Amino acid sequence: MASHEVVIFGASGYSGLELLRLLARHPNIEVVGASSDSSRGERVFSRLPEWPSDLVFEPHDDLMRRVTRAQTALLATPAKTSAELVKLLFDRGVSVVDLSGAYRLQDPRAYVDWYGFAHPYPELLAKAEYGLIELNDRRVRPQTPRIIANPGCYATAAILASLPLVVANLIDNSPIVIDGKSGVTGAGKTLDEKLLFGEVAESVRPYRVARHQHTPEIERALSFVAKRQVVVSFTAHLIPMRRGLLTSVYARARSGVRQEEVDRALTDMYAAGRFVRVVRDRPPETGILTGSNFAEVGAVLDERTRTLIAFAALDNLVKGAAGQAIQNLNRLLGFEPNAGLLPERFEQRNAGSPA
Amino acid sequence: MASHEVVIFGASGYSGLELLRLLARHPNIEVVGASSDSSRGERVFSRLPEWPSDLVFEPHDDLMRRVTRAQTALLATPAKTSAELVKLLFDRGVSVVDLSGAYRLQDPRAYVDWYGFAHPYPELLAKAEYGLIELNDRRVRPQTPRIIANPGCYATAAILASLPLVVANLIDNSPIVIDGKSGVTGAGKTLDEKLLFGEVAESVRPYRVARHQHTPEIERALSFVAKRQVVVSFTAHLIPMRRGLLTSVYARARSGVRQEEVDRALTDMYAAGRFVRVVRDRPPETGILTGSNFAEVGAVLDERTRTLIAFAALDNLVKGAAGQAIQNLNRLLGFEPNAGLLPERFEQRNAGSPA
Amino acid sequence: MASHEVVIFGASGYSGLELLRLLARHPNIEVVGASSDSSRGERVFSRLPEWPSDLVFEPHDDLMRRVTRAQTALLATPAKTSAELVKLLFDRGVSVVDLSGAYRLQDPRAYVDWYGFAHPYPELLAKAEYGLIELNDRRVRPQTPRIIANPGCYATAAILASLPLVVANLIDNSPIVIDGKSGVTGAGKTLDEKLLFGEVAESVRPYRVARHQHTPEIERALSFVAKRQVVVSFTAHLIPMRRGLLTSVYARARSGVRQEEVDRALTDMYAAGRFVRVVRDRPPETGILTGSNFAEVGAVLDERTRTLIAFAALDNLVKGAAGQAIQNLNRLLGFEPNAGLLPERFEQRNAGSPA
Amino acid sequence: MASHEVVIFGASGYSGLELLRLLARHPNIEVVGASSDSSRGERVFSRLPEWPSDLVFEPHDDLMRRVTRAQTALLATPAKTSAELVKLLFDRGVSVVDLSGAYRLQDPRAYVDWYGFAHPYPELLAKAEYGLIELNDRRVRPQTPRIIANPGCYATAAILASLPLVVANLIDNSPIVIDGKSGVTGAGKTLDEKLLFGEVAESVRPYRVARHQHTPEIERALSFVAKRQVVVSFTAHLIPMRRGLLTSVYARARSGVRQEEVDRALTDMYAAGRFVRVVRDRPPETGILTGSNFAEVGAVLDERTRTLIAFAALDNLVKGAAGQAIQNLNRLLGFEPNAGLLPERFEQRNAGSPA
Repeated sequence: MASHEVVIFGASGYSGLELLRLLARHPNIEVVGASSDSSRGERVFSRLPEWPSDLVFEPHDDLMRRVTRAQTALLATPAKTSAELVKLLFDRGVSVVDLSGAYRLQDPRAYVDWYGFAHPYPELLAKAEYGLIELNDRRVRPQTPRIIANPGCYATAAILASLPLVVANLIDNSPIVIDGKSGVTGAGKTLDEKLLFGEVAESVRPYRVARHQHTPEIERALSFVAKRQVVVSFTAHLIPMRRGLLTSVYARARSGVRQEEVDRALTDMYAAGRFVRVVRDRPPETGILTGSNFAEVGAVLDERTRTLIAFAALDNLVKGAAGQAIQNLNRLLGFEPNAGLLPERFEQRNAGSPA
Repeated sequence: MASHEVVIFGASGYSGLELLRLLARHPNIEVVGASSDSSRGERVFSRLPEWPSDLVFEPHDDLMRRVTRAQTALLATPAKTSAELVKLLFDRGVSVVDLSGAYRLQDPRAYVDWYGFAHPYPELLAKAEYGLIELNDRRVRPQTPRIIANPGCYATAAILASLPLVVANLIDNSPIVIDGKSGVTGAGKTLDEKLLFGEVAESVRPYRVARHQHTPEIERALSFVAKRQVVVSFTAHLIPMRRGLLTSVYARARSGVRQEEVDRALTDMYAAGRFVRVVRDRPPETGILTGSNFAEVGAVLDERTRTLIAFAALDNLVKGAAGQAIQNLNRLLGFEPNAGLLPERFEQRNAGSPA
Repeated sequence: MASHEVVIFGASGYSGLELLRLLARHPNIEVVGASSDSSRGERVFSRLPEWPSDLVFEPHDDLMRRVTRAQTALLATPAKTSAELVKLLFDRGVSVVDLSGAYRLQDPRAYVDWYGFAHPYPELLAKAEYGLIELNDRRVRPQTPRIIANPGCYATAAILASLPLVVANLIDNSPIVIDGKSGVTGAGKTLDEKLLFGEVAESVRPYRVARHQHTPEIERALSFVAKRQVVVSFTAHLIPMRRGLLTSVYARARSGVRQEEVDRALTDMYAAGRFVRVVRDRPPETGILTGSNFAEVGAVLDERTRTLIAFAALDNLVKGAAGQAIQNLNRLLGFEPNAGLLPERFEQRNAGSPA
Repeated sequence: MASHEVVIFGASGYSGLELLRLLARHPNIEVVGASSDSSRGERVFSRLPEWPSDLVFEPHDDLMRRVTRAQTALLATPAKTSAELVKLLFDRGVSVVDLSGAYRLQDPRAYVDWYGFAHPYPELLAKAEYGLIELNDRRVRPQTPRIIANPGCYATAAILASLPLVVANLIDNSPIVIDGKSGVTGAGKTLDEKLLFGEVAESVRPYRVARHQHTPEIERALSFVAKRQVVVSFTAHLIPMRRGLLTSVYARARSGVRQEEVDRALTDMYAAGRFVRVVRDRPPETGILTGSNFAEVGAVLDERTRTLIAFAALDNLVKGAAGQAIQNLNRLLGFEPNAGLLPERFEQRNAGSPA
């Protein structure tokens, strides 16, 4: 089958290596460039034994010089770096899937408020599409090249858990409380004392309380489908594991809502979804999803307090980053939705639920 | 100083061993009996190298025969076992601090609803005192012997975080959402496949969603101080660590409430509290508290959504179990509040806060 | 491409699920049966989200009744169970790859000494082949059906690290000391208090000191290639991780041996090896190999003490179990050596080393 | 009882905080100064909730100016820093217990070979005493002030396991192989990518193979008691835990040696030892020793291969660092050997063994 060429910027971090791991198996894609300023000169397979070629990590600038508009770029760089790289690539006619938050929001002021920097190319924000596959709105820009903003890991889980409740109109207008718990790879391979094993093991701690930068993309996505302003109070927690992310969503059930409606809302939403499965007999958990692009969702109506409690679990590096980016790549390039993510023989199981 | 004799039932589990570890240093208490059906015949110091005597674990029945009303009993047995042992001890005139939930609730029906068994001695429930030191209400029964129900680990953290908000009247009447995250020792040394290292490591999962048995004791404590019915929706999560527990509390702020009032509410509540400290410069975290009887609390007003977010962190085996039991023992027996828990030289630092 | 049918006994344990995970991608193999007495009735994809079919775990007996000689059986059952199942399958003409130790040794007495049971079918031992791909000796039995004993996880790593030293005659005749360190999944999903998270986390402990049952298969393999009796003192250690295994091998260097000869011995041995790579710039480590069928080996001559120190790292569930079983299956059935283990595009990189 | 004043340099690292944690309970010692360049200005109790005073971390230089010869200094600084600080303190007449390796070796060249720097004060090396309490040789210098070099964590465990074998003359002259496994706090709170949680969790790796700087102090100690040159090949391994260290020692048994002699050698050596206990029914393990100054030792004769296998387990921050430093301090100052390390009521149990 014809092969499409892809380049990866920021390829030696946790998300970048995960892109390489998954793309090694993609039947339609060939990775022809991988940049990393910190690992320049190192061969990819020294970091990833299964990597099939002699590809070498090169500096961002070298890769940028080589990239052509026949290729597609994946960016696993920090938001400030991505903001610049996307502009350079777009100007050269190269389509991009950006794993950072640099183009997820439309309002330039939100970058000052939530990311702490003024976006350097606010005019480009309107050209970017938010790449959450399960969201009906794709708002595809009829443009070439395209800029796809891959959703954040917390945002993906938060939206997947909340979406059915909002779409089926099961909850009232009060703020949705979202409590996120993530393993450390979500923070990237950052040299920060707080991320040392000695500081993370045997400890749990909240961070960016009510200030996490994934909040506005969650609100934007939910508001779009709700056709009203949805308000979210989100708090992130770091827990001692490498991979895995769970969001616990707490909302006020509308009066009269019953568990059967909740069940139906989830099933209706995800029956057709390839990579989201509804679990009923047990709550979602992350361990079973390690290395996989599947997310699990579940929801319980606490009748006594009229609280709707929904969960989504996923692997933050796969469905929360690299796997979802490949879903976006497949859609952008017209490949099979499962390509690179599931065995080719996989045919959608009709149940959609493991229970 | 004169020494008081204590016996421990269920002494070889995680909480039981922690009682022994702490009491080894208690200046006024001598442990003269330790029961364990599973470790019978084994010497205590084989499990706890610092144990100073040749004490041997003996069967519950043997210990029960020996205990006298001059002694006090600590129970680290499961709730159903404790329900029976407390009755036997009470009838023999022995005061008890019970670490299980067997006597924490007053309404016998709550045991059917939340614990899944009919309480065998409902008439004894009214004689029990709820031993959360920081709660003003002690409702001390003018009786001998006394039954003190040591609070649950989640309940302790949930109440410590919520108490200032309720007392200072900062939140409205809507249900309080509490998201608890705990290490595995909270579940005891139970032979359950779900507690194997291979199943817990690299995973996070909710459990007992909206059905956790600590819910009614949280509601009861908060309702008492609020002088109204406080409703709580509590969900527990298992995270991959041995010790440590964090509760994240989400409530609706009353209109007009500002961060300064929140800060003052915490400071007012815990300025005099020996083992609860208010943190401001960072959120509470569990790692720093391992092995200690201190809890950390903090609270942030999310102005944008008017959500009050409060946290409490503690070591589930110390402040959440054995340490708090020793606080209760000290109060019961008239010893210094810090005895066995802090160096004798410790004098209350006036700030009460590390920031 | 034509598909070969395979059945798996013991499919819901750690090794069994890993077989399923890998075979889901195998281009030539279709899994048509999966037995598990403990998970009977459960669908495979409830445990393994990526599983592509509606296959259901069934009891061992049911699967045994269905299996035909046109199929091949993979056994991920305990040694005593495998001893029986292999006999039943062999008698029915079905070829087997057995992941247990039941047919790894030739001397029936060794089962009494090392496994603690008398082998029920000693006459079958001589018909089994030891399936360590990298060992030149395959001693293939010209028989149908065939019995392939998949090597133990520790044994695989121990042999891979020692083989070059023995083949190149770099070490003297004194016993080789092997210190093994493994994550807990090597022990299977066994309900044993010593395997609870609370007992494994934050602890390291030796076990089966000088009595581990992988010792005789290590000695047998090394003695075969050395053409002399090689004696090994092996000690296993449990460390707090899920997957991953490292063996540290200590042997006396022959006089005159230099580091260059050691380097050459490793390169000569593994240049052609698809799944063993030699590392030089750093010692082997397990983290980089999680989920992969690659092993890393490295060796250092401690000139000062004339000790040759060799290491092998691997994922105990892949190269140490399921992945190696698939290598054996590929060889047995004449498929590509990489099939199911690497992307099809993978072509042997000439260097063989990541450095 | 009269209180002796102590100052701690490098007090905010893992070993420094452990010194503070233990000294908070020491009946005879008052910590009057704690230096930390990185945490200057922070109050000690913000890092250590149980700390009883308002002590503030101050810069090394400030503390150095204040220290008097009536006080004693504990150094938990890196070796190069300690080399300088010891000199300054010694010149001012202050006795020192140094937890680094700066004064553990006598031969200045060994610093170039093993530590990678030329020792700045080689003439001071001969004045230092090696503070392994269990070693009969104390070679106390009849000098004031005294310099006590606290042994390394690996060295302590390696020597404790090997000492009985050497003293009882159970092993031959061939090199002793020592395989060490340690949690990450042994490496200190160093900002090194290899120590991030994401790199340490789910991985095991050797490091400083045959080049670890604790090797010469192990050889020096064992050679002294053996009255011959003992040669050791030592390799360190990093395993995913915070605290805990196990050494596995492999030596050739002299012909004729039997297990009973091994047992007796251990019992004879450690019967009188307060903080070393011999275990027989199971191998030593680290988990049971967390937070304690006890070490466990055990030894097994592998009759088949004539290998003597000995283990020692300890908490690297207590017996391997801060606890042992307090043992040295107690000896230096004439306090009870248990002071600050065990409850005062502790009286030596006669058995010395938990089995």
